[in-house]
Amino acid sequence: MTGTAPAPFTADDYRARMARAAREAADAGLAGLLVAPGPDLVWLTGYAPPAATERLTLLALAPGHDPVLVVPTLEAPDAAKAAGAPALTLRDWTDGKDPYAVTAGLLEPRGRFGVSDNTWAMHLLGLQRALPGTSYAALTEVLPMLRAVKDPAELELMAAAGAAADRAFEEIRTMPFAGRRESEVGADLAGLLRRFGHSQVDFTIVASGPNGANPHHEVGDRVIARGDMVVLDFGGLKDGYGSDTSRTVHVGEPTDEERRVHDLVREAQEAGFRAVRPGVACQEVDRAARAVIADAGYGAYFIHRTGHGIGVTTHEPPYMIEGEEQPLVPGMCFSVEPGVYLPGRFGVRIEDIVTVTEDGGRRLNDTTRELVVVG
Amino acid sequence: MTGTAPAPFTADDYRARMARAAREAADAGLAGLLVAPGPDLVWLTGYAPPAATERLTLLALAPGHDPVLVVPTLEAPDAAKAAGAPALTLRDWTDGKDPYAVTAGLLEPRGRFGVSDNTWAMHLLGLQRALPGTSYAALTEVLPMLRAVKDPAELELMAAAGAAADRAFEEIRTMPFAGRRESEVGADLAGLLRRFGHSQVDFTIVASGPNGANPHHEVGDRVIARGDMVVLDFGGLKDGYGSDTSRTVHVGEPTDEERRVHDLVREAQEAGFRAVRPGVACQEVDRAARAVIADAGYGAYFIHRTGHGIGVTTHEPPYMIEGEEQPLVPGMCFSVEPGVYLPGRFGVRIEDIVTVTEDGGRRLNDTTRELVVVG
Repeated sequence: MTGTAPAPFTADDYRARMARAAREAADAGLAGLLVAPGPDLVWLTGYAPPAATERLTLLALAPGHDPVLVVPTLEAPDAAKAAGAPALTLRDWTDGKDPYAVTAGLLEPRGRFGVSDNTWAMHLLGLQRALPGTSYAALTEVLPMLRAVKDPAELELMAAAGAAADRAFEEIRTMPFAGRRESEVGADLAGLLRRFGHSQVDFTIVASGPNGANPHHEVGDRVIARGDMVVLDFGGLKDGYGSDTSRTVHVGEPTDEERRVHDLVREAQEAGFRAVRPGVACQEVDRAARAVIADAGYGAYFIHRTGHGIGVTTHEPPYMIEGEEQPLVPGMCFSVEPGVYLPGRFGVRIEDIVTVTEDGGRRLNDTTRELVVVG
Repeated sequence: MTGTAPAPFTADDYRARMARAAREAADAGLAGLLVAPGPDLVWLTGYAPPAATERLTLLALAPGHDPVLVVPTLEAPDAAKAAGAPALTLRDWTDGKDPYAVTAGLLEPRGRFGVSDNTWAMHLLGLQRALPGTSYAALTEVLPMLRAVKDPAELELMAAAGAAADRAFEEIRTMPFAGRRESEVGADLAGLLRRFGHSQVDFTIVASGPNGANPHHEVGDRVIARGDMVVLDFGGLKDGYGSDTSRTVHVGEPTDEERRVHDLVREAQEAGFRAVRPGVACQEVDRAARAVIADAGYGAYFIHRTGHGIGVTTHEPPYMIEGEEQPLVPGMCFSVEPGVYLPGRFGVRIEDIVTVTEDGGRRLNDTTRELVVVG
């Protein structure tokens, strides 16, 4: 059941994305964008070199100019095979040449540029030295929403990634929990994600009993026991797009209190979801979910933001957090994942990826949000 | 046969490394070093967060001050478990606080700092904004040899990684080549490296027939045939230290020309190795190997440098290349890997990791360098 369909994007799709990025850069008062290997480059060109390295690879997008990808000569043949390559010019440089001088020739010498967050500092320093009159800002600071709004083809891939994660949950809930280590259940989850088409597993959190009270816990050697609440939070990339879902299960019958806290988080998650519609500020989604938990007296135990964007990465803007006034736009995708964490005892988190529609929100995860009893 | 021994480094080892780094920074006229997650941080502190992210983690080393690791609050418990943690102070920051202001408080406001090559640009920009009077240079530019000289415990781990790679070669040479795809042999090599204790496989090049003439080729779908030369080049990390070795094998009996070219590369590799001794410039190793190939009339077909350093990464300074005048120092480890590449026909490369001793060099790979015939 592995999914191997490549992302259905053509050179024209990438051309349109690059043109839009250059336009948004101009609107933000920038002379252009400089894009390093990583999610920005994948999204703009389809090119994913195996690793970012000390050899400069950089896409230069400037309004009114054709896109140029500066690339080491040895890597040029691979870059030329990228789906977006027909929409750009390759400018290769050989070992011993100065790649910053090559790039500088493409840039406005006194311009201000947005640069991918994860560009290596050595490359930024090289550019600053080659063009002392330029200035720079991190891409997510100047254009945080560049990749946030997904087009229909992207939404289809997001939905497929979510459905695959849901299938992983449907399988894992039938498997034994009691007597196994968190790390074993985590390995099973990773295997299921891959079996249902994920090429990359980013995280498989299995946080049992008191470990569940630490939202940062991943997996450990703890042996899961009857009576444990277990937070499961897992995701990765399928066909280039991300999944991320959480469900909290109980090993055997829960106590009344456990059931009550789970119900509370479920209601908070529902409230967050119902707040989603175009034009609403991100922080309203956080407020809606948080109010339910605070009203029940558990506000001090909900110790993280309500959600984060997702797309070609599993964590990106927009963030559902107090203070984020960015309005929701149809096509945005993000998590809604409130939680309650009772130190030393247990935690509960319920998370779906939600996309903004014309008149509300649509869940891309949809396994039951009722408390599932496992064995 | 998996090796699981942790690197045998204590807090005192890391304390000594950090002190040496701060001293070398001062000698280079720097106010300090700023070290991001990645190989520099692993080497200095033993701390390896799962990924570099938009949340700032940065080690500040300044001469005359105790080392401070700035770290997100959620990650502080993991950082505190690092072997080097007792030798530094953790300064955590919570979501919503400005981590650059926290870091700026630790730095000389008009100082010049060396910064890890792979630090994210968004973090460097944050520091430049928080302290406009500071200036920065890439760490490998100002202190390229910081990690180059290995201590005895490191050399032991390097030798063990090399021995594991050698065992992988001894196994792969007994396995069938003819009729299998390069990618299948590559997968076998990766499995063998893991079986012999590698936790990470960085590359498994299987370049058969004409593919061998491209030193950048990794593996492809080509089915290996009787009569092919096959370049094998593989390595990764075992217990935190790198391996990297190449051998060229022949499927069935080679022709006289194939044997002659292989002999030539073997002699060049031997000449490069024999040039290794303390005080000799790196470029002399390149020259010695290259002269053998050039004298035989194949100079135009040796199209890359002779070697690169290796340690906690599989590619790092020093480089064995014309123009590199850095003298060799006992404890340095690097590859000696000349090759000849005949376009459209075949390639030959032979590579050992070599460490500099008090009076010469010692190979950390030592499988036969004679042409091995495989089936």
